[in-house]
Amino acid sequence: MTVTRPIALPLPGSREECAALDAADPLARFRAEFTLPADTVYLDGNSLGALPVRTPELLRRTVEEEWGQGLITSWNTAGWTELPYRLGDRIARLVGAGPGEVLVCDTVSVNLFKVLTTALRLRPGRRTVLLEREAFPTDLYIADGVTRLFDGARSVQLPSADELDAHLDSGVAAVVLSHVDYRTGALLDMAEITARVHRAGALMIWDVCHSVGALPIELASCDVDFAVGCTYKYLNAGPCAPGFLYAARRHHAVAEQPLTGWFGHAEPFAFRPEYQPAPGIGKFLTSFPPLLSLTGLRASLEIWDQVDLGQVRAKSLALTGLFIQQVGEVEVVTPRQEWLRGSQVAIRHPDGYPVVQALIARGVIGDFRAPDLLRFGFTPLYLSYTEVWDAARALREVLASGEWDDERFRRRGAVT
Amino acid sequence: MTVTRPIALPLPGSREECAALDAADPLARFRAEFTLPADTVYLDGNSLGALPVRTPELLRRTVEEEWGQGLITSWNTAGWTELPYRLGDRIARLVGAGPGEVLVCDTVSVNLFKVLTTALRLRPGRRTVLLEREAFPTDLYIADGVTRLFDGARSVQLPSADELDAHLDSGVAAVVLSHVDYRTGALLDMAEITARVHRAGALMIWDVCHSVGALPIELASCDVDFAVGCTYKYLNAGPCAPGFLYAARRHHAVAEQPLTGWFGHAEPFAFRPEYQPAPGIGKFLTSFPPLLSLTGLRASLEIWDQVDLGQVRAKSLALTGLFIQQVGEVEVVTPRQEWLRGSQVAIRHPDGYPVVQALIARGVIGDFRAPDLLRFGFTPLYLSYTEVWDAARALREVLASGEWDDERFRRRGAVT
Repeated sequence: MTVTRPIALPLPGSREECAALDAADPLARFRAEFTLPADTVYLDGNSLGALPVRTPELLRRTVEEEWGQGLITSWNTAGWTELPYRLGDRIARLVGAGPGEVLVCDTVSVNLFKVLTTALRLRPGRRTVLLEREAFPTDLYIADGVTRLFDGARSVQLPSADELDAHLDSGVAAVVLSHVDYRTGALLDMAEITARVHRAGALMIWDVCHSVGALPIELASCDVDFAVGCTYKYLNAGPCAPGFLYAARRHHAVAEQPLTGWFGHAEPFAFRPEYQPAPGIGKFLTSFPPLLSLTGLRASLEIWDQVDLGQVRAKSLALTGLFIQQVGEVEVVTPRQEWLRGSQVAIRHPDGYPVVQALIARGVIGDFRAPDLLRFGFTPLYLSYTEVWDAARALREVLASGEWDDERFRRRGAVT
Repeated sequence: MTVTRPIALPLPGSREECAALDAADPLARFRAEFTLPADTVYLDGNSLGALPVRTPELLRRTVEEEWGQGLITSWNTAGWTELPYRLGDRIARLVGAGPGEVLVCDTVSVNLFKVLTTALRLRPGRRTVLLEREAFPTDLYIADGVTRLFDGARSVQLPSADELDAHLDSGVAAVVLSHVDYRTGALLDMAEITARVHRAGALMIWDVCHSVGALPIELASCDVDFAVGCTYKYLNAGPCAPGFLYAARRHHAVAEQPLTGWFGHAEPFAFRPEYQPAPGIGKFLTSFPPLLSLTGLRASLEIWDQVDLGQVRAKSLALTGLFIQQVGEVEVVTPRQEWLRGSQVAIRHPDGYPVVQALIARGVIGDFRAPDLLRFGFTPLYLSYTEVWDAARALREVLASGEWDDERFRRRGAVT
């Protein structure tokens, strides 16, 4: 299944039809895998995924048995050392990569630093990095940080990926794009853009934070060079859980990443003074990831191992389509064409912040992105059609009643 | 209390005298704060610290209540955003730093990459980094990784810190040294060496992984420029828990670190395309640390907040002194002078690996570092004098009996 093929969707036209779709939903059984607060419709799984029911027990065992009782011997007996590779191989199925092409480590920002520096080294005669100005800011900031380290290098922020052709000259070393836009939810065509970037002689790096677990991704068959992603959104690994990186196998032998920590050494426990990179994806490892947070990922991947991403994509498009259809007269900035849409819906409103807060007060949790976007994420594993119907109706009511126009909804926290 | 002043120690001469010291030990009350396997003397807290009793419950609350129920709203209501700063301020007391000079983030390797790159930028006319060849390898590897990014830069591995003067010329930008050597347990004089490095116009970076929580550290009064450390050894935060970095306040305004992620932005939630570093220590933040592993640190610092490091140092020296005195005819490579010793004892033996395994079979857990060192770490919060007496006797018996010379003790795991 490619992400660009549109899917015919019969959208439900009533709450009863939603209930019927829920009863027939092949993903409905996964709802019981997640803990969610009562009387809440959680439409922010694109920011922080829900807690799997099985996580606390795996965490308890890891902490009390592996750490508390096994102590240092658990490095061998509990197989800790293999986790960045084994968990990476399980994510590989979700992003269309082969075994040994995905590694779980560090964070999205640190991993982008690694692969972008690697890309600049792989294209020594080229010194420009192209990004979208509307990319998630950390991608822009890291690209600045990387290019500052190379003489004559620069990162160029394009108004949008539509402008790529005008800038894809022989000076471009790499292009960094988000597969799904974190604000608008717009989905880019990975295969077509990657091919275009390759024709210009540059390397392609995708940020899949907002697509992994939301839709099928085909990194290998799209011939992508590198990718980075997170595990705390659709993958439900827990707040700020470790990120992952993908490096196409063809780059493994010659890639040289800059964060040469001891876990990326061919023999870390030989404690040699000279760095010798591990063969394969292992050379991208710097340190061992924090084990307790890694355990959150171990737990949630037990669920994801069972999931059919084709079913996820079909339901995701139905849920976002239903929400767009039912939300009423608002400015939806997310593309209405299914093949251009990720798994979230963004709505522009000049008073977006208090509107989101008023909606939260009604038990529908979305979020706000400055200056004026309401964001709603749709997670097919734990959301029902009926909940989405109710959420759209709640938003209509909040807007129609004007109840959001209240001082208590305008007070801001540190994180909006 | 400075770490260089010797402390007069009456070493116990019998198991009864050990029991008397235990009865009078002002730190004895902390033993109940830790979970340890039965019938075990754990002498590997310098590699992975023991599990605090309070950790599972704080972790359960964080996972089930803050993540599971609070979901995205916990960023504000549970104060997550402040944790890298607040936990850093609590570590600051343990390393002699001021408020706002320590940040909890990433790993030792990544943090060293940040501060060493910063140091090279602060000394633009100088391009040499000095380290000890016997340093923990990740420090050497990261120094290689950093210097490769600067034209003409190089890292030089000295046979030992004793050779510093011969190499401290006007080309040296920074010196990176371990406060306590991870193999021998030797302690360097932070104040004297830092002053010497400064007289040569270079910056001083200390790796305090093997001293934080083991002895008092005075980063600020020693005028140290930068330091990195870990929290999973003496600080008991859990396997691979986040690291920390120290940056002297005088460098905050001009420091420019390379891993410019969004959490280091002055206003991360404004989502602006231009990077503008946070004021103060915040500019060294890249991503938010993995929350579950950070919770392990929150729990263990509740204990460390109550600890008098002078008492820790006095007991640590007594325990290591007792072990050296009672271990018999072996080659102790750890300095016998108290002011040159951290909180571990290393013994050289050509068959170190099976000897350690035979000792583990007797319930005394130490570890092995290639090619020939047995390492024993002494953690004053959860070890008693009597246990150390028994451990020394067990090692004497293992060596005298030759029981280590057995095939089952020679089989190696991935982590030795």
